[in-house]
Amino acid sequence: MLFLKAKLLDIDLLDLILVNPNDLKASQYFAGDRVVLIYKNKNEFGTIYSSTLVNSGEVGITKSLAKSLGVKEGDSITIKHAEKPKSLAYIKKKMDGNKLTKEEIFSIVDEMVNKKLTNIEISAFVTSIYINDMDMEEIEALTVRMAETGETVEWDSLVFDVHSIGGVPGNKYALLTVPIVASAGLKIPKTSSRAITSAAGTADVMEVLTRVDLSIEEIKRVVKETNGCLVWGGALNLAPADDITINVERPLDIDPKPLLLASVMAKKLAMGVGKLLIDIPIGYEVKVKNEKEGGRLARDFIELGERVNILTECALTYGNQPIGRAIGPALEAKEALEALEDPYKAPSSLIDKATHLAGILLEMGGVAPSGEGKELAESLLERKAYDKFMEIIVAQGGKEVRSEDIELGKYFADIVAPKDGYVVKISNKKLTKIAKEAGAPNDKKAGIYLNVKVGSKVEKGDVLYTIYSSSEERLKDAVKLSRILWPVNVEGILIKRIIRF
Amino acid sequence: MLFLKAKLLDIDLLDLILVNPNDLKASQYFAGDRVVLIYKNKNEFGTIYSSTLVNSGEVGITKSLAKSLGVKEGDSITIKHAEKPKSLAYIKKKMDGNKLTKEEIFSIVDEMVNKKLTNIEISAFVTSIYINDMDMEEIEALTVRMAETGETVEWDSLVFDVHSIGGVPGNKYALLTVPIVASAGLKIPKTSSRAITSAAGTADVMEVLTRVDLSIEEIKRVVKETNGCLVWGGALNLAPADDITINVERPLDIDPKPLLLASVMAKKLAMGVGKLLIDIPIGYEVKVKNEKEGGRLARDFIELGERVNILTECALTYGNQPIGRAIGPALEAKEALEALEDPYKAPSSLIDKATHLAGILLEMGGVAPSGEGKELAESLLERKAYDKFMEIIVAQGGKEVRSEDIELGKYFADIVAPKDGYVVKISNKKLTKIAKEAGAPNDKKAGIYLNVKVGSKVEKGDVLYTIYSSSEERLKDAVKLSRILWPVNVEGILIKRIIRF
Repeated sequence: MLFLKAKLLDIDLLDLILVNPNDLKASQYFAGDRVVLIYKNKNEFGTIYSSTLVNSGEVGITKSLAKSLGVKEGDSITIKHAEKPKSLAYIKKKMDGNKLTKEEIFSIVDEMVNKKLTNIEISAFVTSIYINDMDMEEIEALTVRMAETGETVEWDSLVFDVHSIGGVPGNKYALLTVPIVASAGLKIPKTSSRAITSAAGTADVMEVLTRVDLSIEEIKRVVKETNGCLVWGGALNLAPADDITINVERPLDIDPKPLLLASVMAKKLAMGVGKLLIDIPIGYEVKVKNEKEGGRLARDFIELGERVNILTECALTYGNQPIGRAIGPALEAKEALEALEDPYKAPSSLIDKATHLAGILLEMGGVAPSGEGKELAESLLERKAYDKFMEIIVAQGGKEVRSEDIELGKYFADIVAPKDGYVVKISNKKLTKIAKEAGAPNDKKAGIYLNVKVGSKVEKGDVLYTIYSSSEERLKDAVKLSRILWPVNVEGILIKRIIRF
Repeated sequence: MLFLKAKLLDIDLLDLILVNPNDLKASQYFAGDRVVLIYKNKNEFGTIYSSTLVNSGEVGITKSLAKSLGVKEGDSITIKHAEKPKSLAYIKKKMDGNKLTKEEIFSIVDEMVNKKLTNIEISAFVTSIYINDMDMEEIEALTVRMAETGETVEWDSLVFDVHSIGGVPGNKYALLTVPIVASAGLKIPKTSSRAITSAAGTADVMEVLTRVDLSIEEIKRVVKETNGCLVWGGALNLAPADDITINVERPLDIDPKPLLLASVMAKKLAMGVGKLLIDIPIGYEVKVKNEKEGGRLARDFIELGERVNILTECALTYGNQPIGRAIGPALEAKEALEALEDPYKAPSSLIDKATHLAGILLEMGGVAPSGEGKELAESLLERKAYDKFMEIIVAQGGKEVRSEDIELGKYFADIVAPKDGYVVKISNKKLTKIAKEAGAPNDKKAGIYLNVKVGSKVEKGDVLYTIYSSSEERLKDAVKLSRILWPVNVEGILIKRIIRF
């Protein structure tokens, strides 16, 4: 056991614990050891490293760790070796291919949230699930505990939500769907994420127009006033275990189905959602490659929904090219506003997706008869959605806005067709890379505006797309990258000339 | 891309990269991003964290990272996003249950050593191997590349080695075996590790008597002069990928057979060993639980040895209680010296193990006829081994020493038998815990001396074992722990009295 005085470090590496090399040498502790820090009746876990940034007798801890412990600079902290996490045995049980009990899964989730497990153990868990899978009973336990171990929200009436499992750039449909549904009298408190690997998450797009980091109290007020909201879920500590596993899944580039299901449903369960529509884009560059796979995933979502008491429906949608023409926070916000101002001028893929999904929600909510939801959604989009969206923007702390008010990056460059022909393919992944190179999502004004979609006829020299950025240098880099990647393929009608055969 | 001036940090967390939050906000980088640092023609990988410990325009890197890059304080460093490691695809291939090609395994090992892979990816690899196993061809590739990617040693004549796969406390046999073998004219440059989970590694014990952190040049000189050495392998950068995987296996508490095999053989291959004896202790608290398992492991070692050109033999040894009576660096060094000074007074388990293993090596080296190695080893132990050991100690930089010169912890406490009876069980794991609580291996004078072994007859009040420590407080803690764990079980002949039946 060590007793050292706290020295607060301003680093965002939560579990970093620094001890002077002399103190370390004299102790039974080694660099890399997992320890528990004890102060009064609280404890937190961390990893010890040797550093002369702290003097002998001091222990360096991050400000956020100090906050969780309630420790101030100079307070005396007790340090002990952390025991092996209890749930390690259950992770090994999954490694060995066995089914876990509810209690075992609860223990794993609890120790993830308490930071008793490090990325090494969490990666082993994620990998074991990827290889050995989980059945629906295990997934249910995972979902329920993930939801329980964070913030939870209760409502006094039924609330709806719509969630896209992602992968398609330009997917700003929610900025239309939410106000349509809210304007029909259904409550729809939509939480969304910022971009993780994409060029703009729904929260990034919405942030161009208003505040998105609302507290639960604020969300409740906004929904009471307007029936809807579009906020950033990350501000709410919903299902924190989900974020912990995602941080491990991302570098591994895997998304095992049990975790995908639990991830979506735990956040919805925590938000108190009663009826949920899940959008499953299908395409060669998104998570779900074909309809068969999509159908299987949809059935799993519906079954899991039944188990955790969320009435769930799913929609398989076309995901082989971006939705609409705009990619990047400001560009997408502008396009969504244009569509709300005048749906007839907007790209049909955006209108179609937004009203299809809204229509299903309207039918689920009983405000449209079966088969008539889309029509009602279209009519609400034309008549009411813009006003409703302005109400929501204002209630969240923003001001009424028109599409022409949205500023785009002041540097831009057109990329033109190298020859006559037709657009045969548009790569989601390549467009995303280029938009990010231009600065999206951090530079909200950066992104891409597509002048063409798959099937467009073009002549040599026609503009295929325009890249925007707030930085001249970034724009140059993005243009350079676009010359390497060629995200929009143009082919002549004559594909290949064969001279002899 | 970022261009920042280096600020050197004295922290031993190698891949920590600190950037000022303002610089981070203005960039496309997020805390937790993997980046590559470029300086002149060198590059190194790291993870970015946000911190005000560095000013805007600065990047904080550890001194060891600065050293690898050749960077000095204030030098301008280029920072770029690290591409996804190429070998991630091969790790996923193993997750999917497929056999890896030689090239794929080489790529994984190379990217581990270059620090392109983080613990998340390495844990996924280790877990995949645990679940999906590897065949001997894969293990061979792993072994060869692990050896190639570190320091390698060449000798102008055949060298021998003996290696214990560990788990038994008090396992100081090598301090006898090496001088016996060396005194017969065979070359035996033994490298060993410091304690990882035990109370004393062979290197810790040897360090009580002489220097152990020798360079390869120094080892060659010592072996030229004396035929043997007992040094710390950790100073040599042999098969660094092995240490990287061990750091992940340890918290997971797994040791998949392919990695166990590759770990041992890669280090021996790197050291240029030609003939190798592997000691496989069998016991309920060590790695290998029974003879059948031990036989299987032995066959795998022998086959792998053939593939990498190391003639390998194995010995299954009794591992159900400590070897000899002493546990802890100084106590073990003293016991080894006593055994070399007068084998007849030493514990038979130590003499037996040391001469058995030496005997096999003597036979492998052709200096004893088959079946007569142990006898020759005993005779060498009696006549020559002490002098040879002194030669080695002196050549490594120490002084000649007698067992009575070894100082033990000045605080000690006897633990006595609670009743009359027989010692029926001694727990390796519990003894190790108590010795570590007393301060071993960092406190070299701390440890345990057993007065009894399994089968000993004791009377109530007889001393079972003595705990030593340099710290009075540590001794108290260790005594307290020994009262909880009871590592030495004494039972009367009458096990249970049944009054009615």
